[in-house]
Amino acid sequence: MRDFSADHRWLSLNTATVRKQGDLLQIIEACARHGIRAIDPWRDQVAAVGLGRAVRAVRETGLELSGYCRGGMFTSDASRRTEVRDDNRRCVDEAKALGAPCIVLVVGGLPQYSRPGSAASKDIAAARSQVEDAIAEMMEYARGAKLPLAIEPLHPVYAGDRACVNTAKHALDICDRLDPGRTGALGVALDVYHIWWDPEVLAQIARAGKDRLLAFHVCDWLVPTRDILNDRGMMGDGVIDIKSFRWAVEAEGFSGYSEIEIFSDTWWTKPMDEVVRTCIERHRTVV
Amino acid sequence: MRDFSADHRWLSLNTATVRKQGDLLQIIEACARHGIRAIDPWRDQVAAVGLGRAVRAVRETGLELSGYCRGGMFTSDASRRTEVRDDNRRCVDEAKALGAPCIVLVVGGLPQYSRPGSAASKDIAAARSQVEDAIAEMMEYARGAKLPLAIEPLHPVYAGDRACVNTAKHALDICDRLDPGRTGALGVALDVYHIWWDPEVLAQIARAGKDRLLAFHVCDWLVPTRDILNDRGMMGDGVIDIKSFRWAVEAEGFSGYSEIEIFSDTWWTKPMDEVVRTCIERHRTVV
Repeated sequence: MRDFSADHRWLSLNTATVRKQGDLLQIIEACARHGIRAIDPWRDQVAAVGLGRAVRAVRETGLELSGYCRGGMFTSDASRRTEVRDDNRRCVDEAKALGAPCIVLVVGGLPQYSRPGSAASKDIAAARSQVEDAIAEMMEYARGAKLPLAIEPLHPVYAGDRACVNTAKHALDICDRLDPGRTGALGVALDVYHIWWDPEVLAQIARAGKDRLLAFHVCDWLVPTRDILNDRGMMGDGVIDIKSFRWAVEAEGFSGYSEIEIFSDTWWTKPMDEVVRTCIERHRTVV
Repeated sequence: MRDFSADHRWLSLNTATVRKQGDLLQIIEACARHGIRAIDPWRDQVAAVGLGRAVRAVRETGLELSGYCRGGMFTSDASRRTEVRDDNRRCVDEAKALGAPCIVLVVGGLPQYSRPGSAASKDIAAARSQVEDAIAEMMEYARGAKLPLAIEPLHPVYAGDRACVNTAKHALDICDRLDPGRTGALGVALDVYHIWWDPEVLAQIARAGKDRLLAFHVCDWLVPTRDILNDRGMMGDGVIDIKSFRWAVEAEGFSGYSEIEIFSDTWWTKPMDEVVRTCIERHRTVV
């Protein structure tokens, strides 16, 4: 396992972590200030400053991307299928312009939450089937841009409203079906927050192998968790044995960034530099 | 599948559903008033009125039990092992006195939450191992009382603090290892709240078969869920296709009660009779 204790060269900052403290350009400046080499920006943050300015800021600071958040929300009723397809194609175009190595897919839960206004459904099996079809369709477009798609299994707590792919096994089953030749076009993004509870996840990480491990995200699971979406913890403040998961992905050959993504009403109230400094310190000690 | 639309003879009320509206004796009176034939009481509610009075009230009203909640919280540090064992033996004694058909096991998460004061750990694999050893030990005592144990896999959102067995598959793996002969001493309690998200659960219900399906619980998953523990929904108010799960367990031969267990800060504020009437109406229409 790589030694992270001496520096933070393998730290990437998912820009949602400080999204309330500044816009994407200010976050990029903060990264430059703190010697952070990579980010994973969100589409809404890019849109807020404009794609052109975001691309220039990334280039001028020499930042790498560890991913682009996010494609997906594939589930909808029939009237919104074209909207879903076009939205995801634009996502590919943006990721390409920014130089992202992959697009992180949050696949969507039930249609009424994934694409508001869609007819309500309780059929999660149908949602899963729709997700798989839509990933297959998106892959065709993404291949043209040479952009790998990384399915992010989300914690089962989000099955209804955010993602109906909730285990690494399910995500890898989809990879096997849609890219049996392991061409590199499809893989997974694993976030310890979503997978730490899964008794099968270490075996699944081994199954994934280096070519399907496209991104590795860290934060921590707090007990108690006061808000299902926005009470994620700073690494070290919760109950996840983070190093055990980094060990597992690196044992398969993963050598990319360890990306910090923290949705937290608590950390969003703190000054950007304090959050970034804490991320660096925890990256060196507990990741 | 049994027709529930004409009456509520297969409705059991888990007494936690109205635990803030009255004590166990008052809940038993309400069940008698509303023609409810079965309950699943909690240990703290029994203790609050005294075991002897609870036993008499159950007998006098002719109520059946669909289970006894709950045994478990097996994970602890070494200094609390005896406490855990003795606590669970008392649970068996109480269940026997009350005439329960099984004990529902909430197995515990990490030791510091399962048995407060235990040394803190992030080792969920060790917790799982400890749970399995402790179930094996409890089974010996429970066999003497002819009391089956029903492992309840809890939603992965509770993996840290309540139960580190989070899927039907994991629970059934434990059953296979500890009771390979399917003697009836060990099975599962399946609550739609905890399992609805699991893409493998229908196959696992088939694997369980009638002899391991010891209890079936219903409520609903609300979107958004405002509190991880106490914002469960009344059946029909959320996103779970409840009938699909009842169909699946009944297809295996399950013919017991459909037990309503709702932890809800919302429903706890309503009058007991209103909650019970709503339970009956939803049991007949959406369960």
